[in-house]
Amino acid sequence: MSEIEANLAALGITLPAPAAPVANYVPYVITGNLLVISGQICFGLDGKLSDAHKGKLGAEIFNEAGLEAARLCAINVLAQAKAALGGDLGRIKRCVRLGGFINSTPHFAALPAIMNGASDLMVQVLGERGRHARSTVGVAELPADAAVEVEAMFEIA
Amino acid sequence: MSEIEANLAALGITLPAPAAPVANYVPYVITGNLLVISGQICFGLDGKLSDAHKGKLGAEIFNEAGLEAARLCAINVLAQAKAALGGDLGRIKRCVRLGGFINSTPHFAALPAIMNGASDLMVQVLGERGRHARSTVGVAELPADAAVEVEAMFEIA
Amino acid sequence: MSEIEANLAALGITLPAPAAPVANYVPYVITGNLLVISGQICFGLDGKLSDAHKGKLGAEIFNEAGLEAARLCAINVLAQAKAALGGDLGRIKRCVRLGGFINSTPHFAALPAIMNGASDLMVQVLGERGRHARSTVGVAELPADAAVEVEAMFEIA
Repeated sequence: MSEIEANLAALGITLPAPAAPVANYVPYVITGNLLVISGQICFGLDGKLSDAHKGKLGAEIFNEAGLEAARLCAINVLAQAKAALGGDLGRIKRCVRLGGFINSTPHFAALPAIMNGASDLMVQVLGERGRHARSTVGVAELPADAAVEVEAMFEIA
Repeated sequence: MSEIEANLAALGITLPAPAAPVANYVPYVITGNLLVISGQICFGLDGKLSDAHKGKLGAEIFNEAGLEAARLCAINVLAQAKAALGGDLGRIKRCVRLGGFINSTPHFAALPAIMNGASDLMVQVLGERGRHARSTVGVAELPADAAVEVEAMFEIA
Repeated sequence: MSEIEANLAALGITLPAPAAPVANYVPYVITGNLLVISGQICFGLDGKLSDAHKGKLGAEIFNEAGLEAARLCAINVLAQAKAALGGDLGRIKRCVRLGGFINSTPHFAALPAIMNGASDLMVQVLGERGRHARSTVGVAELPADAAVEVEAMFEIA
């Protein structure tokens, strides 16, 4: 078992089946050494969007649920990466960038603390290779009223 | 006539003159095999932003107009790509990523359905090479109150 | 003194100490010839977020302060780039892309004029190499209620 798979096991995470494309776009594209992952919302490990992870930070959603939503987004990013890499997350050389979109009211400024749920998971699973550049913004709305959406770019071998 | 130009002709699309830069930025940059296109708003084929494509999804703009606005953004992306590639869209190897920003109220969650207007056009014109990773978010406002803005990254030959 | 350092000196800008990472992400990642910079908010040259650069365009913040906030973001981007490049901004071959997020009310559509504060600074410092692709959107909220956040991608030697 690879170090990454061991990390996932230690965290008790079984990567979910990656969400299937529902339109004329795809969950990931590889160009050269870059793997670009479509924005992933906070579907649970059962593939469903829980009511607990829908709505806005600063209104229906409290910080703890937002943090968990961001973590789920990162798990879904890794599930897509695993599919893109033929099952071998060991081909990841670096998580280059995460883009974090937080569904928030116009007054919820504690956005980085929410996005840490994604950043922390990435480092817990990938180790030093998981340290990424990141942008975090609060948006007016997200698909399906998800609390968080995370997109990613990886450098791969 | 290339397959891509034939697709455009079959769709009845004549790519508009790409919008000129109005400040210290440029419509596109090529780095290595990547072509990065600035965010394009939904100017019509006549180069003008129609009132029909201004305002927010969930308020002034209904779904059909939003879909058409997203399609126009994709057409403008292709117009910029054509200019970047010396007129030869055949140099596109892959649409790597589209970023979709939808001008929306805090309660308009059907964002992916709107962004499909851009994704569908990309595949109608570029075929399999048009299938892209994508992120879609609802934002508080867009330049000139445009309904949709789309940015893009292509892999080129 | 390099041309870039001379430009900074002529502008009276001493790049601030780049903001330290405060979580499991990093201010920049280099992959191949690409340097990806995390979203930078409008900290002042003293490393502090001034009240003058907090709040929303269209509400608490007027255009002039927004423009200055965007300029500060670009300065902070360059400070991170300098750190990433071992102090030598001359290794920048091109500013490929800036992503501009403006903290704005749902009715503030003059977003590009604000983002010009970042674009203009980039060209004032880097010259022709500073001309970039760009996307500008108005978002519901930003970290610490900053008025502007700018992320960047550079091509480096």
